[in-house]
Amino acid sequence: MSDGAIHGVLLTPLRQIVDERGAVLHMMRSDAPGFLGFGECYFSVINPGMMKAWKRHSRQTQNLVVPVGGVRFVLCDTREHSATRGALQTIELGRDLVFSRLTIPPLIWYGFACVGTTPALVTNCADLAHEAGESETLPDGSFGDARALIELQRGLKPP
Amino acid sequence: MSDGAIHGVLLTPLRQIVDERGAVLHMMRSDAPGFLGFGECYFSVINPGMMKAWKRHSRQTQNLVVPVGGVRFVLCDTREHSATRGALQTIELGRDLVFSRLTIPPLIWYGFACVGTTPALVTNCADLAHEAGESETLPDGSFGDARALIELQRGLKPP
Repeated sequence: MSDGAIHGVLLTPLRQIVDERGAVLHMMRSDAPGFLGFGECYFSVINPGMMKAWKRHSRQTQNLVVPVGGVRFVLCDTREHSATRGALQTIELGRDLVFSRLTIPPLIWYGFACVGTTPALVTNCADLAHEAGESETLPDGSFGDARALIELQRGLKPP
Repeated sequence: MSDGAIHGVLLTPLRQIVDERGAVLHMMRSDAPGFLGFGECYFSVINPGMMKAWKRHSRQTQNLVVPVGGVRFVLCDTREHSATRGALQTIELGRDLVFSRLTIPPLIWYGFACVGTTPALVTNCADLAHEAGESETLPDGSFGDARALIELQRGLKPP
């Protein structure tokens, strides 16, 4: 029941190739860890001081990268037969934080918060296209594990 | 030989779903126009005042979306048997400009420039993963069609 890595969650370091014109940032390849097929790619913009939580997919795997700004992710494992049931995992991603791809398997609850003072951009390459009824949402304050919300809110306030 | 749409280039309008927390921005789906398979997704950051030009792929199709900032794309059709051989196509993309996906088939020369005063982000969902030798590059000033460079530079200076 301790905090830490959740079984099946992957964190894959990605390359940034920077020059005076800007940069090329890797995101996903068809031969990369966590790639199970391509269903949909979309962006989630999150404004300073804001959270998006909580969400759980029944079948879709998320592959999340933050190419702009900083985002704190909190994941909670409530899977009945998981070796890490009850675990919370907190990860901050961004070019100036950790530039890695976060792979979230189905059935993990997750939320995220903007860290910093500018809008952040989350990009998701999911293995299945959006389908009504495939995911569940809960308002941020109504999630069963109070530690998860505390962890998420912590991202909103710089130390 | 006139300017205008190049045969095989697609511009597909995308949805932006905005709320007080931020937005969800569509990018690509496996059942969308221009989707030929998934090889790689990556980001290109381009700083104000900068251009990235010129590039041509032999087999890879580009699917480009600009979720942050504004970018001017210039495309040039030099394909020997194309109905639009010699045509230039200029498109400015961004959330505040035109929020569409630009699909560039193989063998079209293209370049892009940052418009505006903040860095822009181009996202590419390409049908094939990067492969050495699959693309050609030319320095911006050495491209055969002088109109193309003029069109690109025009993006750097607001009217």
